[in-house]
Amino acid sequence: MPTQVKALAAPDSTAQFSRTVITRRDPGPDEVVIAIKYAGICHSDIHTARGEWAGTEYPLVPGHEIAGIVTEAGPEVTKYRVGDRVGVGCFVDACGRCAHCLAGEENSCLDKTIWTYNDRGRDGQPTYGGYSEQIVVRQDYVLRIPDSIPLDRAAPLLCAGITPYSPLVRHGAGPGKRVAIVGLGGLGHMGVQLAHAMGADVSVLSRTLAKRDEGLALGADHYHATSDPATFKDLNWAFDLIVSTVSDDLDVDAYVRLLKLGGALVFVGLPPDKQSFRIGELCGGHKTISGSNIGGIGATQEMLDFCAAHGIAAQIELITADQVTATYDRVVAGDVRFRAVIDIATL
Amino acid sequence: MPTQVKALAAPDSTAQFSRTVITRRDPGPDEVVIAIKYAGICHSDIHTARGEWAGTEYPLVPGHEIAGIVTEAGPEVTKYRVGDRVGVGCFVDACGRCAHCLAGEENSCLDKTIWTYNDRGRDGQPTYGGYSEQIVVRQDYVLRIPDSIPLDRAAPLLCAGITPYSPLVRHGAGPGKRVAIVGLGGLGHMGVQLAHAMGADVSVLSRTLAKRDEGLALGADHYHATSDPATFKDLNWAFDLIVSTVSDDLDVDAYVRLLKLGGALVFVGLPPDKQSFRIGELCGGHKTISGSNIGGIGATQEMLDFCAAHGIAAQIELITADQVTATYDRVVAGDVRFRAVIDIATL
Repeated sequence: MPTQVKALAAPDSTAQFSRTVITRRDPGPDEVVIAIKYAGICHSDIHTARGEWAGTEYPLVPGHEIAGIVTEAGPEVTKYRVGDRVGVGCFVDACGRCAHCLAGEENSCLDKTIWTYNDRGRDGQPTYGGYSEQIVVRQDYVLRIPDSIPLDRAAPLLCAGITPYSPLVRHGAGPGKRVAIVGLGGLGHMGVQLAHAMGADVSVLSRTLAKRDEGLALGADHYHATSDPATFKDLNWAFDLIVSTVSDDLDVDAYVRLLKLGGALVFVGLPPDKQSFRIGELCGGHKTISGSNIGGIGATQEMLDFCAAHGIAAQIELITADQVTATYDRVVAGDVRFRAVIDIATL
Repeated sequence: MPTQVKALAAPDSTAQFSRTVITRRDPGPDEVVIAIKYAGICHSDIHTARGEWAGTEYPLVPGHEIAGIVTEAGPEVTKYRVGDRVGVGCFVDACGRCAHCLAGEENSCLDKTIWTYNDRGRDGQPTYGGYSEQIVVRQDYVLRIPDSIPLDRAAPLLCAGITPYSPLVRHGAGPGKRVAIVGLGGLGHMGVQLAHAMGADVSVLSRTLAKRDEGLALGADHYHATSDPATFKDLNWAFDLIVSTVSDDLDVDAYVRLLKLGGALVFVGLPPDKQSFRIGELCGGHKTISGSNIGGIGATQEMLDFCAAHGIAAQIELITADQVTATYDRVVAGDVRFRAVIDIATL
């Protein structure tokens, strides 16, 4: 029998959250029921809740950085047992059979990736995210959270961890490579820790030097202010890889000039408008502009295991359900160090 | 004693060529004198001669697709002997010691790559290109033209061959890969032949189907008109690699959508204005926009040897010195099949 569970919903684009009750389906044979303990607040939640991206369906229950405990498992579930520490990220289903799914990129399913919230499940019902007590997910789309990572600090890894992890791995961040992370927010602070753990020489490019000490403590070797024109002069030809986590408009050409021969500028932050660039800047030095969007299930599990092996987790501020509305403004202001996580027990 | 040699010069941006005489220096100890036999007409020659790019110095003697015979060699020259069949491409000197030169990318010398024309040599004198009887070049910046390639059909390879060759090699064009070449002009017709010889499945994306039969004869497996909206629908997620050889503005996002997961759109044609793109189009499928600009000396020699091994050369129209001015208009109109080459004997 479907279960009524407590949740936090935005009724409209004012994004004034209030408590509500949503229905979670009975688990199917290959599904698990997860008691959600913590849910991270991602900037995407804010864009969606405030209707800044097209297509928000209200009431909206956001949250795709979910950590909790398995409380029930369908009869065909083999991967998880009651009591297991698990996570759910940005998507909860995919076809599993298309070329992309078979390549481990379920986040680009050719049939359709089903997003954790603001989407429709295979049953046609709205999907609701992690700002709630419980979620029901097919076992193939659930991640195992290693014992050494506290659940609250693990939750943000499901989006803010995998997002920078993917391009760092794809572009070979490691010893002898110079990597720059643009922006030191939720994604950026994970990017710095991950790139440092991979053995790369890590620079932070942030608007000001305000978070310099924190950046260095996270593992950055260098810290530069992008508001200082000297930065763009001094760092000409400097980086093998630049990962931009910001969602403001960017002077693309200026960052391209900071790349080495064959270097890559990878966007994981999403400016809402089109960006412009001069093709000639890419040609001299065969440089690359690229984008990346989370990662598949296999890569996400690999990232969680990598974090455990290197003692990495998100640095968080634990907040109550009552603080979510106000916290959105603090996230937008860049005031949170470095990820706000909702304690679902306060719901 | 410096030599006076015949040349063809543009006096100003009207690009009305006329015969003139230029001075070539005596060869230094590590330099060779080359009797130029053929010079290809590259679209860059036209942009430069017509002052469409900043910084043209007149009188201009263009030409960076040069094929000829060594007629004299300085005492320290070890690589070439009198009578050797040789080529000169887009640059005639570089420092040879910087990180880029040591990586075989003399075309991005950190000191300064010295371009074959419209530049200044280390002696401070203007460099003059291949629309002339003779050129003097350091042996390290000279290419060997394999015996099996006729000199006239070899000349265009020095720019129109290496330019598509570099991204095709860099992005692994070969069996099992689907490659699209945008535009079937001088660069494009080489791109098709090279990608086909590498074993890739090759598509041409051209404005119309006018050159379809020629494209298929060059080795293309498929031919699509970009003026037909169905092309952009049918070829969604189709290509591992798209090499754009055109220099018109391009709907970047539309081409990005034709890429597979992790696919690359590489520009070797240079639209004069900034291009715009939506970062989100790159993220879903971690796609790449890149640029490429000729190649180093080692890569250029490799390309020439590859062409010889696969029986590839440029398809050309041999023209006289008197026809150069008029031919520029024909090149711009896309009327040449596929590269105009000046017979220097007519100078």
